[in-house]
Amino acid sequence: MRAVDLINDKRSGRTHRPGEIGWLMGAYLRGDVPDYQISAWLMAVTWRGLNVAETAELTTALVDSGRRLSFRDLQVPVVDKHSTGGVGDKTTLVLVPMLAAAGCVVAKMSGRGLAHSGGTIDKLEAIPGVSTTFDTASFERAVRESGMVIAAQSPEMAPGDGRLYALRDVTGTVESIPLIASSVMSKKIATGARAVVLDVKVGDGAFMATLESARELARAMVDLGRAAGLAVVAVLSGMDAPLGQAVGNLLEVQEAIETVAGRGCKELLELCVVLGSEVMVASNAALTLAEGRTRLEATVANGSALAKLRDLVMSLGGDGAIVDEPSRLEKAPYRFDVLAPRGATVGRIRARAIGEAAMHLGAGRATKADVIDPVVGVVMHRGIGDTVRVGEAFATIHSRHPLGPADVSVQAVLGAITWVDGPVARPPLVLEVVR
Amino acid sequence: MRAVDLINDKRSGRTHRPGEIGWLMGAYLRGDVPDYQISAWLMAVTWRGLNVAETAELTTALVDSGRRLSFRDLQVPVVDKHSTGGVGDKTTLVLVPMLAAAGCVVAKMSGRGLAHSGGTIDKLEAIPGVSTTFDTASFERAVRESGMVIAAQSPEMAPGDGRLYALRDVTGTVESIPLIASSVMSKKIATGARAVVLDVKVGDGAFMATLESARELARAMVDLGRAAGLAVVAVLSGMDAPLGQAVGNLLEVQEAIETVAGRGCKELLELCVVLGSEVMVASNAALTLAEGRTRLEATVANGSALAKLRDLVMSLGGDGAIVDEPSRLEKAPYRFDVLAPRGATVGRIRARAIGEAAMHLGAGRATKADVIDPVVGVVMHRGIGDTVRVGEAFATIHSRHPLGPADVSVQAVLGAITWVDGPVARPPLVLEVVR
Repeated sequence: MRAVDLINDKRSGRTHRPGEIGWLMGAYLRGDVPDYQISAWLMAVTWRGLNVAETAELTTALVDSGRRLSFRDLQVPVVDKHSTGGVGDKTTLVLVPMLAAAGCVVAKMSGRGLAHSGGTIDKLEAIPGVSTTFDTASFERAVRESGMVIAAQSPEMAPGDGRLYALRDVTGTVESIPLIASSVMSKKIATGARAVVLDVKVGDGAFMATLESARELARAMVDLGRAAGLAVVAVLSGMDAPLGQAVGNLLEVQEAIETVAGRGCKELLELCVVLGSEVMVASNAALTLAEGRTRLEATVANGSALAKLRDLVMSLGGDGAIVDEPSRLEKAPYRFDVLAPRGATVGRIRARAIGEAAMHLGAGRATKADVIDPVVGVVMHRGIGDTVRVGEAFATIHSRHPLGPADVSVQAVLGAITWVDGPVARPPLVLEVVR
Repeated sequence: MRAVDLINDKRSGRTHRPGEIGWLMGAYLRGDVPDYQISAWLMAVTWRGLNVAETAELTTALVDSGRRLSFRDLQVPVVDKHSTGGVGDKTTLVLVPMLAAAGCVVAKMSGRGLAHSGGTIDKLEAIPGVSTTFDTASFERAVRESGMVIAAQSPEMAPGDGRLYALRDVTGTVESIPLIASSVMSKKIATGARAVVLDVKVGDGAFMATLESARELARAMVDLGRAAGLAVVAVLSGMDAPLGQAVGNLLEVQEAIETVAGRGCKELLELCVVLGSEVMVASNAALTLAEGRTRLEATVANGSALAKLRDLVMSLGGDGAIVDEPSRLEKAPYRFDVLAPRGATVGRIRARAIGEAAMHLGAGRATKADVIDPVVGVVMHRGIGDTVRVGEAFATIHSRHPLGPADVSVQAVLGAITWVDGPVARPPLVLEVVR
């Protein structure tokens, strides 16, 4: 087999024969095929696509490049959750303790944020003392012993995906649905959960801007997981506006704590209940979605989820008391209220612009080498459909340095809002479920 | 500027802004942008294309990567000729001495053959003593002093094209019209002729299988040459059957000599007259195509073209006497006559199959490292529309080793022919001229 023949095949729109993608990836990871041939193949794949069997073969090759954990021997439902990434998305911090309190074992590895979209690991590590670095042995032990782990993605799991992603990142081949699907699912398969719920974000602040592309990605990921013996369900959720009010690492941690405590954002909690009841049914932890919902809601009402969140923070080296007193979390030295230019209703909030404003303040990374400032960010006091009076503060910017009205982040927040007269319906939280 | 942004732009179908391609090529050739980004960009270009301005900018970058010769100070028309490659294509060996005898200066660099298609340099170097290696200084001197040179492509001319082509060759990005056009024209522009005629082959034995793709390539090359101040004309000629009778290096040299001497293939001579009169008009060496034709035909009739061919061979270190006694050229030790399976008319000759049969015998290269056997090849005694009796030899295979009827090359020659009953029209020699 020759790499150039496979590149030519894909460029011409042909389907690879069984074994060819496995050979190509194996040869690449052994160093027998150079980066410049793989990047050309990746671009041909971005152009021509991969069918279900081809994507599954790529995924298997990525899983087989590293360790694959298994918790099949445990007599409890081991679950995992993945979000394709959005602005203000702190669902993992809320949902993991809820699932643990509802009787599931959660074995989750998470990523860091990039561009306008935040990452769970950055949020957790904004809490003083927290470290999410686990090797696979300690990750496996933690799953078995404490029943709930959120760890940074281990380089021992699907290392081929790490190499392939680094190449995609610099060769314009990130935005390909089969490549995204195989990248996500190779890591989920290797992590060893029995059931996975995928939160596929759709809209302005998501990587998938349209329902069609999100549906296609969800379908590809569900099929890949199923082919590998996992129970997978994908929830397509709206990301036209930020999720919840807070965007920025410690601001989001605080909102997550408030939500787990039952005092936070209703929409955020509802999304977590939808995601959680889906994965409980998928893992046979609950017989029906209604049962899952009831049990998950109870974990918030009876304080058991908050106790699990305290355990989680402590298990990662943090101070559990912040769960009871989130106001003790470090604050940004400066706050700037963004005022409504007129009395009106919020018609639209461009989530990506809010995410970019937060990134500009230091909450995110433009490049992988950037260091994150945990305290900065944006808090939106109004959501879509809410009204404001002229001059009322609809958002507050938390910053490291004093801001003025002409500052980029202020202008970005102002520009993110579409003001309308008269009522506006809130956009749906959940658009579709792909099983 | 960042390479990944330009790759993303092209992947998304956007047009590069002026300066971007020049920057990308410059950074690549300096070593600041790695192969794996360029190969991804090349695949995106193969997918999305380049417009006229983008292709011109790429071509300029390739020309500027090396030396650019100029013969503007000469008071005579300096011309060049290029063929996109076909089977049995010995036009350069016939046309260059004709043009020289008709008063043009010919400054031509040529390539070697690859795959089923032969190259002029391989044919010339099959003549004992001939060397076509010139540095640019000796090439320039030879043009000025002897008025006629055919040299192997100098690595000092458009070296960026050499690097880019080597990368395209292993990354499935050869078959892109703007990339082919810029590759060809960067070398033509650097060589310094005032006028160029392009012989764009169309059909089974050519790289462009359809008239549409050949027309598109011809248009792109003519536009590129014009943008660089050259007079360029492209002749689209048929390559559904081999050109002339001989396929194989010394066999083709012999046919070329016979044709220049006026005893050879009428169609081959006619194509050379068409190509030659076009470039004579383009370079102002002739006022009309009719004048060019008359003067070119005269060079064969009066022996002046044959004298120029003798000069050419001698100037390259060969024995000029072979022009007068081509039978002195080395012969293959074995010949095998391929017999007609029935009395019929030749309806079709698949040129590619004949080229591949010759390559199998050793006349061509499957990879660049292969060594060519100058004496082997195939001679077709019948062309399209000719009739044969059953058992009559319609082709002779010249080989290094004895052959039997089951040999691959014999079967390939037999399989290349479509036999029909009743008359068949010969396909047109010239399909179109693009100015």
